[in-house]
Amino acid sequence: MTDLKDIKGFAFDVDGVLTDGGIMADLEGQLYRTYDSKDGFAVRMACLNGFPVGVITGGRSQSIRARFKTNGIDPEDIYLGSRIKMEDFEDFCSRHSLRMDQVMYFGDDVPDAEVLRNAGIGVAPADAVDEAKEAADIVSSRPGGRACVREYIEKAMKAQGKWIFDAQAYKKKF
Amino acid sequence: MTDLKDIKGFAFDVDGVLTDGGIMADLEGQLYRTYDSKDGFAVRMACLNGFPVGVITGGRSQSIRARFKTNGIDPEDIYLGSRIKMEDFEDFCSRHSLRMDQVMYFGDDVPDAEVLRNAGIGVAPADAVDEAKEAADIVSSRPGGRACVREYIEKAMKAQGKWIFDAQAYKKKF
Amino acid sequence: MTDLKDIKGFAFDVDGVLTDGGIMADLEGQLYRTYDSKDGFAVRMACLNGFPVGVITGGRSQSIRARFKTNGIDPEDIYLGSRIKMEDFEDFCSRHSLRMDQVMYFGDDVPDAEVLRNAGIGVAPADAVDEAKEAADIVSSRPGGRACVREYIEKAMKAQGKWIFDAQAYKKKF
Amino acid sequence: MTDLKDIKGFAFDVDGVLTDGGIMADLEGQLYRTYDSKDGFAVRMACLNGFPVGVITGGRSQSIRARFKTNGIDPEDIYLGSRIKMEDFEDFCSRHSLRMDQVMYFGDDVPDAEVLRNAGIGVAPADAVDEAKEAADIVSSRPGGRACVREYIEKAMKAQGKWIFDAQAYKKKF
Repeated sequence: MTDLKDIKGFAFDVDGVLTDGGIMADLEGQLYRTYDSKDGFAVRMACLNGFPVGVITGGRSQSIRARFKTNGIDPEDIYLGSRIKMEDFEDFCSRHSLRMDQVMYFGDDVPDAEVLRNAGIGVAPADAVDEAKEAADIVSSRPGGRACVREYIEKAMKAQGKWIFDAQAYKKKF
Repeated sequence: MTDLKDIKGFAFDVDGVLTDGGIMADLEGQLYRTYDSKDGFAVRMACLNGFPVGVITGGRSQSIRARFKTNGIDPEDIYLGSRIKMEDFEDFCSRHSLRMDQVMYFGDDVPDAEVLRNAGIGVAPADAVDEAKEAADIVSSRPGGRACVREYIEKAMKAQGKWIFDAQAYKKKF
Repeated sequence: MTDLKDIKGFAFDVDGVLTDGGIMADLEGQLYRTYDSKDGFAVRMACLNGFPVGVITGGRSQSIRARFKTNGIDPEDIYLGSRIKMEDFEDFCSRHSLRMDQVMYFGDDVPDAEVLRNAGIGVAPADAVDEAKEAADIVSSRPGGRACVREYIEKAMKAQGKWIFDAQAYKKKF
Repeated sequence: MTDLKDIKGFAFDVDGVLTDGGIMADLEGQLYRTYDSKDGFAVRMACLNGFPVGVITGGRSQSIRARFKTNGIDPEDIYLGSRIKMEDFEDFCSRHSLRMDQVMYFGDDVPDAEVLRNAGIGVAPADAVDEAKEAADIVSSRPGGRACVREYIEKAMKAQGKWIFDAQAYKKKF
């Protein structure tokens, strides 16, 4: 496991990580997800401080892209319809000239296990499945959708002295 | 109760099983439900491995059909507006040439009780009503909408050595 | 407090009783509520057995009316925008030739207190405010939106030998 | 910390305070929030009794404005897209000729900390982040979205003998 001080980027799955796993379907089968405002703030803080942030999800809804753009994530760093997550994780790392062991990855289910094993720090939410927990370096005390991403982005940024809220800079960027 | 190794199909009620029972109504009274991503993954794994999977619900919203098609369930196996669930369960079994005692069924309320008694393994979520729990063979430790379906699909598939995630096959199918 | 055997009608508030109190607002400020399927089944059982069922809510959304019509409640028995609930409760009782002490009422907040005191059996959800709990005869172990209405409709109907699921009659009516 | 008897106005953040932090995104990235009916009742009671009530949120959705207008809040007192909350809090106070130490403020995250320190009584929900809890005078036993605002508006109004429900006045205003 990489030291928190050496983490240079963040990436995460969506369902069950940034959400509690709940997916609402409308009459046409379009899907809606509910995010947590505390996670959103942490993503903004990471983007504001220059950390590359990636989203790697099996979901295909454009709403995922729309949601994370407002949090400062570059649309190119949002991988929708990801089926083989390692490939997208490797692409994210190489595009940002990062080694996989410099990136913290959050995942909760079987398709995340390989990335959790290869990331610098793999984090699984408290309600992740066993395969994800076993592959992860850390199991958060928080379940998906309840600020588990915030918790560890914050810890990494605090370890690096970068968790400092500058209201003026924040206002300028968002 | 049938042995997990001998289960050859899965069927379930929707409200209170694949959801926490919550039904959101819009201004015209159209109804929206929230599903769990971990349940969705298990349904895909079952479909990918050739298990017939059926949905038998009193609900009538086309959104239910739309939701489960993306999980690989054949539209013919989705029974909407089901009022006498045993009839639909028998139809599902006979269409797939399965005996009722080869199918695992998940249900949480009074209309599910008869099917729970007749299925090979009847599973009730932790927050099912007493009539459903008494009719079931197993009461899950998980409430509806929190991966109780995942839990027992996974157990059955693991007992048969079929809970193996093949990212390439998964990518090809979904 | 009236004996469960002598209850001849049911009435309830919506927010915090049939829901967990959550109200979702859309971009125009239209409001959406999430109901519980187990409560819905109990309302259907009561309607099917000829019990008058009333809804008395401060909410004004037509979605409330749309929701409860599918559960068998007569549109005339749905009081939207209720500000002085005792007046609407009295109207409901007199229209059905019931005395107030023959009706079970469910409420969770200050505007419900007077009705809770006057109803035959007043029931407050576990998370009702103190004024409602003090006015009620019974505090349910279940919070609003988690089948507290089901719990006591079922108890009253069981006490009267009327909690019997007849799938054929159910199919015919709904 | 100001005495509850001397509080003359209320202001609050939205996400994580009036909501559980959950933000639902639609296909275009529009955001939807779920409020609590018990909080809504308290806001109405405060408005009905002449307390200025302010909303200071980083959110930009017009739905926030629409929601709180129906609760009696003056649209001018709803600050959307707030990035430097102290500025908006000072504006709210000066527009109502209140000193900051006469206002109770509710906040849950880093951008609220400065206001929590300067308000007469700063209240943080049970699930606020550490920076907000440390800046607050009081940490509620209730998490965001579960009536933490209700709890302390009610306490302040009760301390002043103003928590009296007048159904006729309520009906006239709302």
